[in-house]
Amino acid sequence: MIVRQASPANLEFPFHTLSERLTPPGMFYVRSHFPVPQLDAAEWRLEVGGLTEQPLCLSLADLEAMTPRTLTATLECAGNSRSFLRPKVEGVAWELGAVSTAEWTGVPLAAVLERAGVLPGAVEVVLCGADRGCLEEPAKTPGVIAYERSLPLGKAQNDVLLVYAMNGQPLTPQHGFPVRAIVPGWYGMASVKWLTGIYVTNTPFQGFFQTLDYSYWQHRGPLSPQMTPLSVMRVKAQIARPAPGETLAAGQPYIITGAAWTGEAEITRVEVSTDGGLHWAEAELTDPAESHVWRRWRFAWQTPSTPGKATLLARATDSAGCTQPTQHAPGQGKYMITFPLPIAVRVE
Amino acid sequence: MIVRQASPANLEFPFHTLSERLTPPGMFYVRSHFPVPQLDAAEWRLEVGGLTEQPLCLSLADLEAMTPRTLTATLECAGNSRSFLRPKVEGVAWELGAVSTAEWTGVPLAAVLERAGVLPGAVEVVLCGADRGCLEEPAKTPGVIAYERSLPLGKAQNDVLLVYAMNGQPLTPQHGFPVRAIVPGWYGMASVKWLTGIYVTNTPFQGFFQTLDYSYWQHRGPLSPQMTPLSVMRVKAQIARPAPGETLAAGQPYIITGAAWTGEAEITRVEVSTDGGLHWAEAELTDPAESHVWRRWRFAWQTPSTPGKATLLARATDSAGCTQPTQHAPGQGKYMITFPLPIAVRVE
Repeated sequence: MIVRQASPANLEFPFHTLSERLTPPGMFYVRSHFPVPQLDAAEWRLEVGGLTEQPLCLSLADLEAMTPRTLTATLECAGNSRSFLRPKVEGVAWELGAVSTAEWTGVPLAAVLERAGVLPGAVEVVLCGADRGCLEEPAKTPGVIAYERSLPLGKAQNDVLLVYAMNGQPLTPQHGFPVRAIVPGWYGMASVKWLTGIYVTNTPFQGFFQTLDYSYWQHRGPLSPQMTPLSVMRVKAQIARPAPGETLAAGQPYIITGAAWTGEAEITRVEVSTDGGLHWAEAELTDPAESHVWRRWRFAWQTPSTPGKATLLARATDSAGCTQPTQHAPGQGKYMITFPLPIAVRVE
Repeated sequence: MIVRQASPANLEFPFHTLSERLTPPGMFYVRSHFPVPQLDAAEWRLEVGGLTEQPLCLSLADLEAMTPRTLTATLECAGNSRSFLRPKVEGVAWELGAVSTAEWTGVPLAAVLERAGVLPGAVEVVLCGADRGCLEEPAKTPGVIAYERSLPLGKAQNDVLLVYAMNGQPLTPQHGFPVRAIVPGWYGMASVKWLTGIYVTNTPFQGFFQTLDYSYWQHRGPLSPQMTPLSVMRVKAQIARPAPGETLAAGQPYIITGAAWTGEAEITRVEVSTDGGLHWAEAELTDPAESHVWRRWRFAWQTPSTPGKATLLARATDSAGCTQPTQHAPGQGKYMITFPLPIAVRVE
């Protein structure tokens, strides 16, 4: 793991080691805002309240007694690749590895909401983590706050899981033990870890991690841009090998590999440029298309016979017809970095 | 006028000159975010759209042909008295004079909304000003934006006026010529000047001046604090005379005067302390109680016979039973400064 911040732990999957579809055990990226809360599985309870017919207080045994569901999902931090932005921005300086894939097992949030009985007028479901604290500049929190994020009722009642197992094992403390949310197709900030509360509301939630953090300026209608919580992942391809700065042999065959992912569609095409974006050629997709899971790809390259520098790029297109933009939109600030990332290598 | 910022104009009413109930012509405080837009009354149009049966495009003559209404209202900038906060905060360093009272004439927003026909599902009405630009640090805008603020549909359909006259005269350029909103009982930021658009929405508006600016952290239910747009004015009394730092004659009668106001209630009581808050005594209210208008008051004081310093305070109570808090709540940041302001004077 690449340590971007030791405390709280912000650890990056070394993306150039990508080989399997599932990220190897212990290599899944870690994004933390506060220290890991120490939760006892036997004492742990999930409170479900707000606009519900009856509030619930569920134990881990209660959740495990419900019909389980398993799905594979890629999570990407909304700030992944932030270190490629110019000018530099605030926040954890992620390079390529704030993205990973795992198999998750748990209970549909929809089943829990149905048991509680969502009342008319509900518009959102707030997921509350046990992690809490203060953040300092530049985005200072209003005193001690918990990590809380909301989902529109429709998404919450669709495919969100409350998971207690990752790749068939109980969650580790850093990944949200004993129970976390998995919100397929959305940036990682929605998949709240150390889940202890679920709160149904009749107005959109305006907490710190929903408004000041993990939000961007979106144009809607004739008005000035509006602050909008990040949600669905945008289409993106990344090069795993060669790694940035790697030295390759001149005039040799080289297999460029990587992965591509998107939010609510499927990856249909990946293109590679080995000349800094002048020319593009199609890569081979080596994984089957599957919703919410990255698709690995490969591209056979003959390195230049003359020594020098080369800039490699990859870009993906999805089944909704979206292709990566050529530039970062300023309104997105330090999030959703999906322009094709220049991977500079040396040919010798 | 006291110039707090020359460009854009942020001008303070010299509150120690308070004498009449209406602020004298040319002395009403000015709060600007961008340069004054140059609007031609003949060419000016008010676009009304969004969730309406039929969009409208009204001229000034159209508005003047509607049944007019006149009301008196005190406006206070949400950052008034900011310079009394410790530690110091960002923003225009208002002292006592970002508050004034005028008589306003115009057309009920409700009548315009009725003519446009608000459709089911509407929740807010966004008021759009013609003033626009960028703000720099610390709260950087997403490019060029307009001054826009929203109101809940209920308030918009209640007592909000679209005004074209102030104290019987056409609005001056600095006060929103040719038409501005007046939102009685709310902090001044809601009374959008240079109004050119009214937009009915089905979700809460999340523009810059609604979320990052003119917003505060409010506790609601079991969740962490949520960013909440400022709205109703809080109860507050201010001392006009003596002015801060004034020198008074020892052992003499002195009439302390001032005004008090509140949002959706009426001022019922003002108390004064001449010893820094140890003892309080009731002041005499010299104006009748009237919704949305400040109430002047006076207090007869015998200054100490021994020379020295004295700290004077005033605090108000309203018909809703609210009294000014003793301290500024940190979650309110640089807004709603309503603790009793210490007016330090010298007795010689």
